[in-house]
Amino acid sequence: MLKAILHYVNRPDSAGRNFAPEISFTKANFLSRLHLMISCKQSLFVLLALLLPVVSHSAEAKPNFVVIFCDDLGYGDLSCFGHPSIKTPNLDAMAAEGQKWTNFYVAACVCTPSRAGLMTGRLPIRNGMCSDQRRVLFPDSSGGLPPSEITISSALKGLGYKTAAVGKWHLGHLPQYLPTSHGFDSYFGIPYSNDMSKEGKTSHFDLAEAEDYSAYKVPILRDEEVVEQPADQRTITKRFTEEAVRKIEEFGDEPFFIYLAHNLPHIPLFRSEKFKGQSSNGIYGDVIEEIDWSVGEIRKALKATGVEENTLVVFTSDNGPWLKFKTHGGTAGMLRDGKGSTWEGGMREPTIVAWPGTIAPGIVHEMGSTLDLLPTFVSLAGGELPDDRVFDGVDLSDIVQGKTSTSPRETMFYYHGEQLYAVRKGEFKAHFKTKTSYVGQNKPEVFDPPLLFHLGHDPGEQWNVQAEYPEIAEELTKLAEEHTSGVERVPSQLVGRIGE
Amino acid sequence: MLKAILHYVNRPDSAGRNFAPEISFTKANFLSRLHLMISCKQSLFVLLALLLPVVSHSAEAKPNFVVIFCDDLGYGDLSCFGHPSIKTPNLDAMAAEGQKWTNFYVAACVCTPSRAGLMTGRLPIRNGMCSDQRRVLFPDSSGGLPPSEITISSALKGLGYKTAAVGKWHLGHLPQYLPTSHGFDSYFGIPYSNDMSKEGKTSHFDLAEAEDYSAYKVPILRDEEVVEQPADQRTITKRFTEEAVRKIEEFGDEPFFIYLAHNLPHIPLFRSEKFKGQSSNGIYGDVIEEIDWSVGEIRKALKATGVEENTLVVFTSDNGPWLKFKTHGGTAGMLRDGKGSTWEGGMREPTIVAWPGTIAPGIVHEMGSTLDLLPTFVSLAGGELPDDRVFDGVDLSDIVQGKTSTSPRETMFYYHGEQLYAVRKGEFKAHFKTKTSYVGQNKPEVFDPPLLFHLGHDPGEQWNVQAEYPEIAEELTKLAEEHTSGVERVPSQLVGRIGE
Repeated sequence: MLKAILHYVNRPDSAGRNFAPEISFTKANFLSRLHLMISCKQSLFVLLALLLPVVSHSAEAKPNFVVIFCDDLGYGDLSCFGHPSIKTPNLDAMAAEGQKWTNFYVAACVCTPSRAGLMTGRLPIRNGMCSDQRRVLFPDSSGGLPPSEITISSALKGLGYKTAAVGKWHLGHLPQYLPTSHGFDSYFGIPYSNDMSKEGKTSHFDLAEAEDYSAYKVPILRDEEVVEQPADQRTITKRFTEEAVRKIEEFGDEPFFIYLAHNLPHIPLFRSEKFKGQSSNGIYGDVIEEIDWSVGEIRKALKATGVEENTLVVFTSDNGPWLKFKTHGGTAGMLRDGKGSTWEGGMREPTIVAWPGTIAPGIVHEMGSTLDLLPTFVSLAGGELPDDRVFDGVDLSDIVQGKTSTSPRETMFYYHGEQLYAVRKGEFKAHFKTKTSYVGQNKPEVFDPPLLFHLGHDPGEQWNVQAEYPEIAEELTKLAEEHTSGVERVPSQLVGRIGE
Repeated sequence: MLKAILHYVNRPDSAGRNFAPEISFTKANFLSRLHLMISCKQSLFVLLALLLPVVSHSAEAKPNFVVIFCDDLGYGDLSCFGHPSIKTPNLDAMAAEGQKWTNFYVAACVCTPSRAGLMTGRLPIRNGMCSDQRRVLFPDSSGGLPPSEITISSALKGLGYKTAAVGKWHLGHLPQYLPTSHGFDSYFGIPYSNDMSKEGKTSHFDLAEAEDYSAYKVPILRDEEVVEQPADQRTITKRFTEEAVRKIEEFGDEPFFIYLAHNLPHIPLFRSEKFKGQSSNGIYGDVIEEIDWSVGEIRKALKATGVEENTLVVFTSDNGPWLKFKTHGGTAGMLRDGKGSTWEGGMREPTIVAWPGTIAPGIVHEMGSTLDLLPTFVSLAGGELPDDRVFDGVDLSDIVQGKTSTSPRETMFYYHGEQLYAVRKGEFKAHFKTKTSYVGQNKPEVFDPPLLFHLGHDPGEQWNVQAEYPEIAEELTKLAEEHTSGVERVPSQLVGRIGE
């Protein structure tokens, strides 16, 4: 434990800087223009986070963890989740050998807050990673995931893990917020979305068609250094995969955590030569089929290095499909709406968990969430979470290992920015507010009593049953009120801009 | 061959009557009030059908065929086709071991014409089994599948097969139209839909909830005799399954064809005690889960009798989900609309084909249709179709056996009653007329040029691409015109009423 903390504190390029507020420094490209703005208060939090680390209990062999995280993948986008024209043989095989989760949720309906929820096991409302003004971080944003947060990576690092982040981050692009400042030994990827800093008025569709990645000024970083700008997105899934495979080979027998966050199928859509024109679903299908190939490569590498049976792999995405992009966006299948909405299509994701030899093949209809990954991984790694903060995640290790068929997750809270829009308990979901999809700043519709849906009987949220079950609507309303009054609000990290 | 014909002609209770027009006779219950009304012209057709039988070429062992046909099952209703709360482990296993077809069509968007297409390999427009006035046959209908038609059963019977029909027929309930008059050695089932002849004003929902099957006057027939009226629908899936299992055991090593046509999940919904309240999808899920159990029983029986590897099993349904029944109806998943419409949700069905040892596991994205079953079965049984009539079905035996990955089916014609509404060729589908779902007699919208959708890129038929591909819209328009002008219209069997 001590060794892990020391290692973390002593990393010259990240933790060191966490204790040096107001230091300005020069780096290549865009980073050169940025300043570290960590306040003394933030430093204290960091110190606190390091003094209250995850405690290790177990002497057993620690399993490895690989999280493969997509961007804007719809519930219905995989063949094993019902897509009729996209081919995903590797994911289908993973689902057949592992657990296919049909009620697995993300922490928010858009990118940044969803990723914050996954990384910290806490709803973004608790750490300022959501906002009603700006939905996500933009290249001019000055905020990011507070250093006081415990992340999957910092927690596992404290338990002796090697850690690597590959792909899209989107939890802050200033150095103090980058993966290497949050417990990752290394980072290779893009700091925010692949459509950001687009130049010119050409549409995403036309740019994708022309394979013109240069219109997007998003950089690729290695650790904290910009190594490519603009990122050549045509080969980005391939290169992220190769990096992750290299890490698997490098880590070998040491316990490791790899976070492979593909920036696709978020628009603009690019895929490497081999996948061009291959899918009968068109360019969107090509992109998914390359991600499917990537999953196959990762699993092949785990097998080749002999760690397959000691590695838990989770495949999911950050939020539902971006429907307004039509054939360049995915589908939520029979679920309602998509990205940016708190209807099921916005927050329920096609999720597959594999761990050969430990997970018995099956379909899990119980609830789970990306919020649960941190508590689950820490538990499986023999650690324990500190009690100085609220975790919204629950430990799914028993259901993953087949020790129970019941999930400890009984509720789900659906946030839209800083507002609680809906609550699920058991099969019932109450909507207090709804807002259709990703359409600007229109006002939400407000419901009192709430709309009530039975998600088992009616996964498409079509038939309001509030009149039949008024007492359940009341119960969920109370649950929402209790939750909301129990949340201590903190300043949003998403509103500040560099130079303000 | 000769033996088969003789056997068919000499059956005392069916074929004999085919040659005895205008004979009235008495039978128990409703049949007692009916008269045979086969004209001399029809008798000639029957004779012709028997003189131009399917010719047998092959001396090889003939495979058995089992068709499990549901009623109003939606594309998205099975777990392996993406349903998040209905559990279908037996169908999932069948899909994993066999072929899961994602572009498999029925011959019409409602019951009677769809079944006529399956049984004859011909579009219902060619044999009068569709109508713009009455969509299906009703208990007062005087028509049925013309005796001149060659059916899967009569064709296979001519090739030495034992044949059994179990379940819903709906191709005519007068004796000359019943399964035993169409090449089936035996029949056990209901002659038309399970919601027919409802007494009283109580809703289907309430009757299902109260398990009150007695409000529906539909009978169960054994061969041509009514053996139960009203049919106790609570145990109907179970009893149909038991009958089919008995037939498998009875047939043993002799080549056989079993047509097991469940009358569910067509409303009203009933299921046996064991499945009551079991599904998290509610009563609809209970019903599907009992059908899934049934599939497991059939496959178990094939294994137990040692014929599993010599039996091709096809699972599909007659048309899409009856959406107006909400939680008592199914879902087409991401496909548009349902039963009664020529949008994909009305006519594309979740289809699984299994044949252990012959079919390599896989997903087939090529087109297929229930129209193709007759030509495929006849081909696999070593027979040949006569050339005296047009068959709309194509022989899928090569793609089923993995000898090719390309389907010979290149087009699909979507009829609404007697009208051609849409045509698919390759990935493109042109709609000349559309009518939303199953809503009375509203007029269709007419499109000239047609709406054009790329079903690979856009399986949900959301984005008309006619403006981008005007030449394809024109090609499909020509194809539709050629098809329509080539169809010889015959009087509809669906309009006549008993006693008229």
